Amino acid sequence: MGRRHRDALFPPAAVERLTRHVDIDPLVLAEDFDRVPDPAGVEILITSWGCPPLDEAVLARMPALKAVVHAAGSVKHHVTDACWDRGILVSTAAAANAVPVAEYTVAAILFANKRVLEIGGLYRAHRTALDWAAHYPGLGNYRRTVGLVGASLVGRRVLELLRPHDFDVLLADPHLDPAEARSLGARLVALDELLAVSDVVSLHAPALPETHHLLDARRLALLRDGATLVNTGRGSLIDTEALTAEASSGRVHAVLDVTEPEVLPETSPLYSLPNVLLTPHIAGSLGGELQRITRSALDEVERYCAGVEFAYPVTRAALTTSA
Amino acid sequence: MGRRHRDALFPPAAVERLTRHVDIDPLVLAEDFDRVPDPAGVEILITSWGCPPLDEAVLARMPALKAVVHAAGSVKHHVTDACWDRGILVSTAAAANAVPVAEYTVAAILFANKRVLEIGGLYRAHRTALDWAAHYPGLGNYRRTVGLVGASLVGRRVLELLRPHDFDVLLADPHLDPAEARSLGARLVALDELLAVSDVVSLHAPALPETHHLLDARRLALLRDGATLVNTGRGSLIDTEALTAEASSGRVHAVLDVTEPEVLPETSPLYSLPNVLLTPHIAGSLGGELQRITRSALDEVERYCAGVEFAYPVTRAALTTSA
Repeated sequence: MGRRHRDALFPPAAVERLTRHVDIDPLVLAEDFDRVPDPAGVEILITSWGCPPLDEAVLARMPALKAVVHAAGSVKHHVTDACWDRGILVSTAAAANAVPVAEYTVAAILFANKRVLEIGGLYRAHRTALDWAAHYPGLGNYRRTVGLVGASLVGRRVLELLRPHDFDVLLADPHLDPAEARSLGARLVALDELLAVSDVVSLHAPALPETHHLLDARRLALLRDGATLVNTGRGSLIDTEALTAEASSGRVHAVLDVTEPEVLPETSPLYSLPNVLLTPHIAGSLGGELQRITRSALDEVERYCAGVEFAYPVTRAALTTSA
Repeated sequence: MGRRHRDALFPPAAVERLTRHVDIDPLVLAEDFDRVPDPAGVEILITSWGCPPLDEAVLARMPALKAVVHAAGSVKHHVTDACWDRGILVSTAAAANAVPVAEYTVAAILFANKRVLEIGGLYRAHRTALDWAAHYPGLGNYRRTVGLVGASLVGRRVLELLRPHDFDVLLADPHLDPAEARSLGARLVALDELLAVSDVVSLHAPALPETHHLLDARRLALLRDGATLVNTGRGSLIDTEALTAEASSGRVHAVLDVTEPEVLPETSPLYSLPNVLLTPHIAGSLGGELQRITRSALDEVERYCAGVEFAYPVTRAALTTSA
């Protein structure tokens, strides 16, 4: 992992906890595999953002490698087929990383249904009392319809956090059946139906070839007038040009933490629209939230050392339908 | 109640439900008591925002009045000592009205700990990637300290909604003991301690003579550098001038849905500070959220008609320590 991530994820207390369970040189940080001092002796790799691919050449130098504990979300960048072929065990902290994304998403949904930011902007601009409810009919978080696209880890955490609220929750996911959706507190519907009836649509699908521009111009046109589209997933899920047109007309509102491209071009109207909250990919773990990932990774190392299966194992098969 | 509230709170379906349980002229709306057609026959008054005080003169004309079902929050404006002296039963929809306030508050807390709006503003201004975590050290919603002032209905709902998150929750309330606070998921502390150690402080105390300017210049100075003060309670809880100074220096962040005065003067710096989210008293029930209040009030009418005690009774004694 990169030095920045090492310093943030593994402060002295975390390294100290590691030394209680594994032989580790607490000063070692390998930003690439050439810098691993004794590769032949490595049994567990703790990886994070910035880890280079574990390809055949790397693995050939680490014949004792048995487990990769990833202190971040997706392992797709560095866990190669060669790892799976060798039977290396892989764990991820994706569940820990899903928590802050879900928190941002739920806060965005609650604010969006109430037009909190738009009304705040109008109040700042006019500096007088206006009839907000008349301005935005149907305001509020009572019995509104929230549509979630993708029962990913983040999607499932969002479902949990939405439970105490008075929403009708819809879920679109090609890998789920209606009973599973019901057990998650949602009603399974087709994506097009979800888009057509939801007050807020939130994207939690993985970036896969089949989800590229999942929300294209046709599907964006299905959104209700005044609907809000929340994307804390991946920028590539949305056709940015088509969304820019829908948001510029004022028909659709948006909360975008990820975009395609990231960073958006300087000339993008999305920077300045009053009906768009644009943030620079901050919903995921930041600052102190990295410690939740550290705890998850260290728990996994301890499980491995105790001969217990990983709590959050990754399999080659699961990666075909998840991030 | 005012016509606006009548139209929003009692659409035809709600009036229809009422007619199943009580004798009511579905066309009657009394904006003041002179317009009640048969005051001597009134047993139940359904009141809401804008109801004039039920004083001796009014009550003298309604000798059969036995119950006041308030389709809004506080009954202090219209339920007078004369009502209590006559033993009139009083019910409130304050619990239903607390729900949206708590939702706004929790969304504000989740965004505040992560500096979502400030970072969004910087991204809009710079249109480039910056190192946000370095800019705002300690970002995020993991193991931060949230301090709630007042275990009111809103405060208790906020406590419930904070439970799935990884916060240390503190509570200051002179009418609670430590065991009660623990059962609500919080640790009871003195107000000054709460202010000194919390990352976010949220006000849920009632407006009473003893809570006027509860957060004065001395107490605001106790807040940690970078702390966020959330006020969805009453503007009078804060010395606005002192808060304006603290926010203008950038030392304290704020989310203010209520202010003193309301509306703020046009020249107030609070309108334009990047570290302040200012909204015009919209956290409470708006738009569709009024239907939650209607449902609560109609439930109470049905309970009264069935000879069952109110689910949300108000007593004279309770009003000395609540809104």
